[in-house]
Amino acid sequence: MIKKENDVNGIKVLAFDVFGTVVDWHGSIAREVGAMQLRVDGDRFALAWRAGYVPAMQKVMSGELAWTRLDDLHRIILDKLLAEFKIKHLTETQKHDLNRIWHRLDAWTDTVQGLQRLKTAYTICTLSNGNLGLLTNLSKHAELPWDCILSAEIFRKYKPAPETYLGVAKVFDVYPDQVMLVAAHQSDLDAAHQCGLKTAYIERPLEYGPTQKKEIITHPDNTFHARDIMHLADLLGC
Amino acid sequence: MIKKENDVNGIKVLAFDVFGTVVDWHGSIAREVGAMQLRVDGDRFALAWRAGYVPAMQKVMSGELAWTRLDDLHRIILDKLLAEFKIKHLTETQKHDLNRIWHRLDAWTDTVQGLQRLKTAYTICTLSNGNLGLLTNLSKHAELPWDCILSAEIFRKYKPAPETYLGVAKVFDVYPDQVMLVAAHQSDLDAAHQCGLKTAYIERPLEYGPTQKKEIITHPDNTFHARDIMHLADLLGC
Repeated sequence: MIKKENDVNGIKVLAFDVFGTVVDWHGSIAREVGAMQLRVDGDRFALAWRAGYVPAMQKVMSGELAWTRLDDLHRIILDKLLAEFKIKHLTETQKHDLNRIWHRLDAWTDTVQGLQRLKTAYTICTLSNGNLGLLTNLSKHAELPWDCILSAEIFRKYKPAPETYLGVAKVFDVYPDQVMLVAAHQSDLDAAHQCGLKTAYIERPLEYGPTQKKEIITHPDNTFHARDIMHLADLLGC
Repeated sequence: MIKKENDVNGIKVLAFDVFGTVVDWHGSIAREVGAMQLRVDGDRFALAWRAGYVPAMQKVMSGELAWTRLDDLHRIILDKLLAEFKIKHLTETQKHDLNRIWHRLDAWTDTVQGLQRLKTAYTICTLSNGNLGLLTNLSKHAELPWDCILSAEIFRKYKPAPETYLGVAKVFDVYPDQVMLVAAHQSDLDAAHQCGLKTAYIERPLEYGPTQKKEIITHPDNTFHARDIMHLADLLGC
């Protein structure tokens, strides 16, 4: 239920990046892998898995791979990692379950309450490269109160393709500048800005864990710069 | 959050038809049009608008019309109706707003609580011919607590095309018989059953209002037959 009218810059829809912005992929994976008695460093394993993500997506974007859902890209990367980390004893069921770790990541502590506040004044949705099933399971696990789950899977293009950002505006029948992308990654925000969307940067200094510091960006093109999602709700008067 | 494990026939996902099954399109439109001082019978207007729906969709399914979202089909039908009902004084803004009546339909009184109960044990989603923006706005208006909104718009096929029913199973990476379609229309359930889905019939005797009685079907192929969504939650032990 929309409780109050939104009059901040005409924004109607907040589209959220998910991995790193609303959920803590690094901490969730490092903890679960660390507890699995695989004799691997959970921190290193999480970072290596995520590092395989952009190259795998680029194979789809270049046409080298046909359209492939993120679940399947994650599995291709996982199979390589298991070899590199010399983990040889997992059954197929265990590998499948490990790959589904991306369906049960935990939210940052400010996320759920921040989204609930923003939902009173805006339509809130995901815009993630995660596939719909992954995002739905993840959102159910972490109790994320989306109005709608949008995914690269719907547009058959991965971010930063313009079709994804402009696709959000088309779905809701609004102008691009009535949509704001919320993300912890400046490259994602830059691509959205080029499509005419508004942008909100979220800091997330611990996205890559304690060993790999993340540079916090302050970019003049961003419409808002927030420490976290509760702070964004403050800035938007929710 | 899934509070208890589901063990009823292995069902994981409940996919809901929306118009008539979870929201009362007839009553909502008849009330609002009746209050508009258009000097038309709201009941007749609602029935006429809905009667245009299947023929309009069939033009898309036959290829006579390119892919067209339900919002745009509703508008094509509305423009014809305004002529038939001799309503000539509406501005373009008023027509656009009237067409968005489908974005603000009210839920049947059992819907929200029934969905909340079912959500504790199943993934609950829409499977509707409504477009994503319409379904999102409608769900926000009526406070429908979906885990995910799926639409013909995602599959680029309207129900009863098999791609829509099988598409739900693909999205969630489950077998067709782990999905149950919940609908107040036997033709929809028949098509889902032919694709291997489980089916739940919801009665909704007042779907077409007080003047046009609806025949309640009891079909042996249906997995469940429920008076309403609260009753379905009872039958599923939620």
